Amino acid sequence: METLRASPKGCTLYVAGAGHHAGPRIRQILEEAEKKGIAIRQLPEMDLSRMCPEHRGLVLEVPIEARGMFSMETLCEHSASKDEGLVFVLDHIEDPHNLGAIIRSADAFGVDAVVIPTRRASPLTDAAERSAAGATAWLPVIQAKNLRAAVDQLKDAGFWIYAADMTGRALSAKPLEKKAAILLGNEGKGVSKILRDAADECISIPMFGHVESLNVSVSAAIFMYEYRRARTH
Amino acid sequence: METLRASPKGCTLYVAGAGHHAGPRIRQILEEAEKKGIAIRQLPEMDLSRMCPEHRGLVLEVPIEARGMFSMETLCEHSASKDEGLVFVLDHIEDPHNLGAIIRSADAFGVDAVVIPTRRASPLTDAAERSAAGATAWLPVIQAKNLRAAVDQLKDAGFWIYAADMTGRALSAKPLEKKAAILLGNEGKGVSKILRDAADECISIPMFGHVESLNVSVSAAIFMYEYRRARTH
Repeated sequence: METLRASPKGCTLYVAGAGHHAGPRIRQILEEAEKKGIAIRQLPEMDLSRMCPEHRGLVLEVPIEARGMFSMETLCEHSASKDEGLVFVLDHIEDPHNLGAIIRSADAFGVDAVVIPTRRASPLTDAAERSAAGATAWLPVIQAKNLRAAVDQLKDAGFWIYAADMTGRALSAKPLEKKAAILLGNEGKGVSKILRDAADECISIPMFGHVESLNVSVSAAIFMYEYRRARTH
Repeated sequence: METLRASPKGCTLYVAGAGHHAGPRIRQILEEAEKKGIAIRQLPEMDLSRMCPEHRGLVLEVPIEARGMFSMETLCEHSASKDEGLVFVLDHIEDPHNLGAIIRSADAFGVDAVVIPTRRASPLTDAAERSAAGATAWLPVIQAKNLRAAVDQLKDAGFWIYAADMTGRALSAKPLEKKAAILLGNEGKGVSKILRDAADECISIPMFGHVESLNVSVSAAIFMYEYRRARTH
């Protein structure tokens, strides 16, 4: 409903069946969509499930251009009532290929959202889009003016805050919390002190070689994998 | 000894202490090095341990240019008597950035060697070296004329052969074998049939999103992480 109210251009609202037997909440959303002039299409329930396994009779397709409308407020509101979730906060990642690669992996591992700062970081350039291999169409990327404030919002919404830091405890020593937000630092400097101070815990990926660290997009994917692994087995 | 006999240019042989009290094997190697005109330097035992924790009184430093001399024969000979090891076989990876990123992660996770084909794949270009962030100086990269033959050699040396394939069993369902070789396919086509047929087992990283697959360098790092994780906890 909130997304509809922002009335982004080019959205399509898919509804299961004819929508006649829909409850009051769905009817309300359909009315709002009509009022806003958003395209509505009826689809068999099965097709909706294929688009989005967790749909509740409705799927709103949002074009890439409208991505800016995802906000911390929307994310935290959605997450507040859930007891699990995984969010990444990227502290000034500079390389667009790394940003794109992280978005691609985030989609593959069902991450809820990636938060990036509005300034002094790679925006979603064409290069980032290419590295993301289409995943930017699916994954909410939230631009936050102030990352520290965003982290505090996540904390208030019940997320356990991890900072990726070489001095942290070994990632696999115990499972990540069900509702986790992971802060990843930029390629050179790691997570900034102001964000690290906001974290509940520091975690690291144990290293066995000569080079100093992993590529940040590789680290990100390993955190995502570990989150899913510990929940599955 | 085998590496010395190939007498690569620019090598340096480091020996713990003065080498006077060395056993017959070490003396034999020192003699061979002298004969081949290889520089020999004495270092405190502690410095050698820092260079290579598993040294046995000697460390041979090999410059990047001489990398070509690592061979399947050397790798398999070294591995034959060991009961653990991790090797990656890259089936025609085309993007030099992916190749470099895999080498960087391979060093970070203490992988024994990466095997690449001599033809129809990205060689170790400058771009690959940059993505590897210096790890090519440490990680044995073996160029094999025939990947299927290389896989058979690994099998004979006691490696359990895994092929990364979307239809395979979930990676974390059970720990990887202690002595494992993992075949990774190229960006578009996956592992070729001839290599998959040589594998003992197919494994996959479970996916939860909309995009088709992970970047190959991300997959590689997750396999490496999982190998180490299962051995540590």
